[in-house]
Amino acid sequence: MSQVNKKMKVAIIMGSQSDWPVMENATTVLNALDIPYKAMVVSAHRTPKRLVEFAENAENEYSLIIAGAGGAAHLPGMAASMTWLPVIGVPVMSKALKGMDSLLSIVQMPKGVAVATQAIGEAGAFNAGLIAAQMLAMGNEDLQVKLKAWRQAQTDSVAWETV
Amino acid sequence: MSQVNKKMKVAIIMGSQSDWPVMENATTVLNALDIPYKAMVVSAHRTPKRLVEFAENAENEYSLIIAGAGGAAHLPGMAASMTWLPVIGVPVMSKALKGMDSLLSIVQMPKGVAVATQAIGEAGAFNAGLIAAQMLAMGNEDLQVKLKAWRQAQTDSVAWETV
Amino acid sequence: MSQVNKKMKVAIIMGSQSDWPVMENATTVLNALDIPYKAMVVSAHRTPKRLVEFAENAENEYSLIIAGAGGAAHLPGMAASMTWLPVIGVPVMSKALKGMDSLLSIVQMPKGVAVATQAIGEAGAFNAGLIAAQMLAMGNEDLQVKLKAWRQAQTDSVAWETV
Amino acid sequence: MSQVNKKMKVAIIMGSQSDWPVMENATTVLNALDIPYKAMVVSAHRTPKRLVEFAENAENEYSLIIAGAGGAAHLPGMAASMTWLPVIGVPVMSKALKGMDSLLSIVQMPKGVAVATQAIGEAGAFNAGLIAAQMLAMGNEDLQVKLKAWRQAQTDSVAWETV
Amino acid sequence: MSQVNKKMKVAIIMGSQSDWPVMENATTVLNALDIPYKAMVVSAHRTPKRLVEFAENAENEYSLIIAGAGGAAHLPGMAASMTWLPVIGVPVMSKALKGMDSLLSIVQMPKGVAVATQAIGEAGAFNAGLIAAQMLAMGNEDLQVKLKAWRQAQTDSVAWETV
Amino acid sequence: MSQVNKKMKVAIIMGSQSDWPVMENATTVLNALDIPYKAMVVSAHRTPKRLVEFAENAENEYSLIIAGAGGAAHLPGMAASMTWLPVIGVPVMSKALKGMDSLLSIVQMPKGVAVATQAIGEAGAFNAGLIAAQMLAMGNEDLQVKLKAWRQAQTDSVAWETV
Amino acid sequence: MSQVNKKMKVAIIMGSQSDWPVMENATTVLNALDIPYKAMVVSAHRTPKRLVEFAENAENEYSLIIAGAGGAAHLPGMAASMTWLPVIGVPVMSKALKGMDSLLSIVQMPKGVAVATQAIGEAGAFNAGLIAAQMLAMGNEDLQVKLKAWRQAQTDSVAWETV
Amino acid sequence: MSQVNKKMKVAIIMGSQSDWPVMENATTVLNALDIPYKAMVVSAHRTPKRLVEFAENAENEYSLIIAGAGGAAHLPGMAASMTWLPVIGVPVMSKALKGMDSLLSIVQMPKGVAVATQAIGEAGAFNAGLIAAQMLAMGNEDLQVKLKAWRQAQTDSVAWETV
Repeated sequence: MSQVNKKMKVAIIMGSQSDWPVMENATTVLNALDIPYKAMVVSAHRTPKRLVEFAENAENEYSLIIAGAGGAAHLPGMAASMTWLPVIGVPVMSKALKGMDSLLSIVQMPKGVAVATQAIGEAGAFNAGLIAAQMLAMGNEDLQVKLKAWRQAQTDSVAWETV
Repeated sequence: MSQVNKKMKVAIIMGSQSDWPVMENATTVLNALDIPYKAMVVSAHRTPKRLVEFAENAENEYSLIIAGAGGAAHLPGMAASMTWLPVIGVPVMSKALKGMDSLLSIVQMPKGVAVATQAIGEAGAFNAGLIAAQMLAMGNEDLQVKLKAWRQAQTDSVAWETV
Repeated sequence: MSQVNKKMKVAIIMGSQSDWPVMENATTVLNALDIPYKAMVVSAHRTPKRLVEFAENAENEYSLIIAGAGGAAHLPGMAASMTWLPVIGVPVMSKALKGMDSLLSIVQMPKGVAVATQAIGEAGAFNAGLIAAQMLAMGNEDLQVKLKAWRQAQTDSVAWETV
Repeated sequence: MSQVNKKMKVAIIMGSQSDWPVMENATTVLNALDIPYKAMVVSAHRTPKRLVEFAENAENEYSLIIAGAGGAAHLPGMAASMTWLPVIGVPVMSKALKGMDSLLSIVQMPKGVAVATQAIGEAGAFNAGLIAAQMLAMGNEDLQVKLKAWRQAQTDSVAWETV
Repeated sequence: MSQVNKKMKVAIIMGSQSDWPVMENATTVLNALDIPYKAMVVSAHRTPKRLVEFAENAENEYSLIIAGAGGAAHLPGMAASMTWLPVIGVPVMSKALKGMDSLLSIVQMPKGVAVATQAIGEAGAFNAGLIAAQMLAMGNEDLQVKLKAWRQAQTDSVAWETV
Repeated sequence: MSQVNKKMKVAIIMGSQSDWPVMENATTVLNALDIPYKAMVVSAHRTPKRLVEFAENAENEYSLIIAGAGGAAHLPGMAASMTWLPVIGVPVMSKALKGMDSLLSIVQMPKGVAVATQAIGEAGAFNAGLIAAQMLAMGNEDLQVKLKAWRQAQTDSVAWETV
Repeated sequence: MSQVNKKMKVAIIMGSQSDWPVMENATTVLNALDIPYKAMVVSAHRTPKRLVEFAENAENEYSLIIAGAGGAAHLPGMAASMTWLPVIGVPVMSKALKGMDSLLSIVQMPKGVAVATQAIGEAGAFNAGLIAAQMLAMGNEDLQVKLKAWRQAQTDSVAWETV
Repeated sequence: MSQVNKKMKVAIIMGSQSDWPVMENATTVLNALDIPYKAMVVSAHRTPKRLVEFAENAENEYSLIIAGAGGAAHLPGMAASMTWLPVIGVPVMSKALKGMDSLLSIVQMPKGVAVATQAIGEAGAFNAGLIAAQMLAMGNEDLQVKLKAWRQAQTDSVAWETV
């Protein structure tokens, strides 16, 4: 049913085009598990109205949101303030402070608005796609099967040898 | 149906009884939205077999897991390595480093196993319950309604006055 | 003229009533120099619509904005994204990370939206009022005179004796 | 009137010629909005008399000051101690500590002397020019118009597409 | 006797093949002192069952364990939770936080399970092999002699000249 | 035999009497497993000759050394430079930096001299006694039995209930 | 001769009366070794002219300067920029960042102006007096004798017993 | 007189030959002011006896000591514990933590033994030579004259122009 299909769609937003090489890692697991997604630039600071419009209407089109940003990274938390959909936050590595600023700006949310924060940089973006799949699999047994298979394949691919 | 009821149950695990005063904050939103949960002590380090047994069977009883730990906090990541259920991590404030160690031990997961990390301490525990509710609401319209109402009530409760 | 009076009014916003004991320090210099102000609770996360409404209309009522927040402190940067008025940011000390998270969330703004960040905590709030006065004095010679006198009095009050 | 023209002039000072590639970013917005400025090397440590002479007379020639420095960055705070003009501080990225030392040396000012601190490095220098324009626009409606147009153009330039 | 030979064997485990160029430094002293070892990839997160199987049986084959991992580095602590053998931990340098996350994840163990933590990166891996030899020499006088000779040679190799 | 008894004795040294309340935690496991030890104040900075004399002769009386110190904590590393015995380092929590200085001063040893570093403060001191026992158990089957029993008792004492 | 007596006098300056309880520790060794000193409040920020006057004339009255300050601590570095006398810097512990800001503001001086930085807080202030005595003893054999005796007494006072 | 000549000689010690490219900066000012020095490798960890021998006899040959080291940098503090001569410490930049470990290991000395700590890396090494000259000039009027001239030349060399 379309309602269910809707529920399977993931929004990937980021503060700048320059974040895409990092955030693209979020699509790896989504692609592997056939989960549809849409990637967009939505800057909390340079396009605040776009952010409001996107976040307030996100529930009509998406099941959950992956949001990446760097430095004083306000995008994930502000998106989360305007929708009940789960928001997964990815701290993009910054030039001077190597993403420590991004991480703290995203994870240290006050009581009442939550962000599901991932690691700094590419690993975090990759895992954002993975945990998005895990959340979607909670209500979708087919996806559970695929997800378990993906995890098993990952485990099997780890060789004992160090070289 | 029981399957659906199962899907609504949250496991709250923590590394030590001493974490409970912090982790209890995770129950506030769960209680407010009538989401069932079970809280348990599962120490990654002192009871590793209990952790394995819990995590490998978690999908039979729970929809998702909230895991809190402090210092070299391995519980959330290790639980996540043994189940496909989403794991929400809460860094409990540590004595010397004030939870910075807990935060980095939980959030900096490598590619392939993800944790939905929250803020250090009470705010993070509170938000763990909240984002658990958001994840569950993805597949439950009644819960969506309750969640939106809870959020609106929170917004309404913020007075303009500073005192 | 009322236009000029309008230009002299300062908005002091903060994310929570609990920030007021810190942010009240911003009023010391404003009071001393007879600069009118209005203090309000505007939470970026719990009342995002209030923030949008406030920030988009701020230029009609205020000359500049002092904004204080703690933890993942998004209020100053988000206010700055929605008005051309100068926004002075005050990082309120947080429990676990002592305001380092607040500071980085406020000061590390990306190119294109700026915040005039002050020190963590009471000193920063105090200085927010002071630099607000300095900005207003740029276009108001009476205020320049008062400000210089305030500074001279401050200098004169520093005794040579250590006790 | 010349008095007004004087009020529109910005001083950009920095501790070393090697700071210029970073500090030059402060001129982008100033140039775009036709705000006159003068850039100079004034080292707090190697030329303290030059600093005193500059700062004590700055109000006669400039409306405000942008000051950049790295490491134990004393220039912005010391300039602010000797003039009532607003001083905007830019922490230049340092080699070992990546500007964390510069940031703390500039932003953690004690009660009584304030600096409007920006982000570490190029983004901070860029935003220093921007917030200088915002401060000047408080008393200049023509500049307000130009500033709003600049901001709108910036918003319009943010494409939705990630690539 | 084989029992003694068994006691002399060192297990070197690491979370990923990509850790080998760092962890290989652990073999320098082991090779120099003729201490047998076996290097393996055992990922706490991607192969948790392999870790359990390895750690629970380690005492049958090895005298002690060297474990290296980066980021949210759970391998040393989790191995230590499942064996009484001493576990020497090596924090591998991570991309964003340069190994500070690895270090804190390994060293900040709670009461009851200990890890003998070394420095971040190559020096730490090198020293892991060295301190493994020191531990083994406690019960092996031949190895004591070799170890003292190795240390003396190291001391002798330090020239007075700076170039 | 006395040689074996000698091998079982642990030296606990610390930089100051004020470290004893923390370092005393190192005796808990030693006492529980009947491992003899001697605790002494040996200050690297205030009594360097005592340190040289102690460290150069330690192998005649002790099997291994536990060394605790705070701030610029040189005691563990310097002891390790003068004996082949394994040195276990405990970073004592310092007043200003909460033991981060102690930790880095102890753990970041260069290639060639190793310290088995534990967590900051009481947990680290407790675990120093534990890992000392683990090292001694490598060559002592009776101690292995006791150690395993101690670990099992620890595991058994972890209740499932959060309160 | 008075010239020599002049050479023996130490100036102790600090940014605020509130720094005295910490800075008073600098007098312990000076008193013990009969070295004259004068303590004064000289605020780099609130009394910049007093600082200039003091620093430019310091060589006429003092042999060296001990300077303590907290937060964005500019006093030691700015004093050093205006005199050839050695300046010993003491980072006073700050409220939010516990003196890390004070330390970096003092120690990270650029090439060309140096400060002899001590530890954060009381220990640093105490040692400032000690190293001042060491510097003075370079040219005063009587003081060398006293200093060596003081050091020996300190060494002798360290008991072996932990309690 | 030779006694005075002895008093003018500076020892420059460092933990490793690899520190020389940084520590060589300490010779710039010494060379400029004709102050004799001797540079040597003295490793606190790999050659502890050499350190003892050097430090205990340093007063016979040198006036003061410049000591550089990286990571867990014990050389400056340990040298200071064994001589009454002033020791100037230079934190050499380390690979992972960029010298923050070096800095804290050197500067955070406990009460009773002091090190005159400089900035991390080349600037700190350069300034070590400078402050050594300042200390020597306390008792040498010819050197005062040279030093003042050097400082004036430095000031004169700072151009106003940014390029």
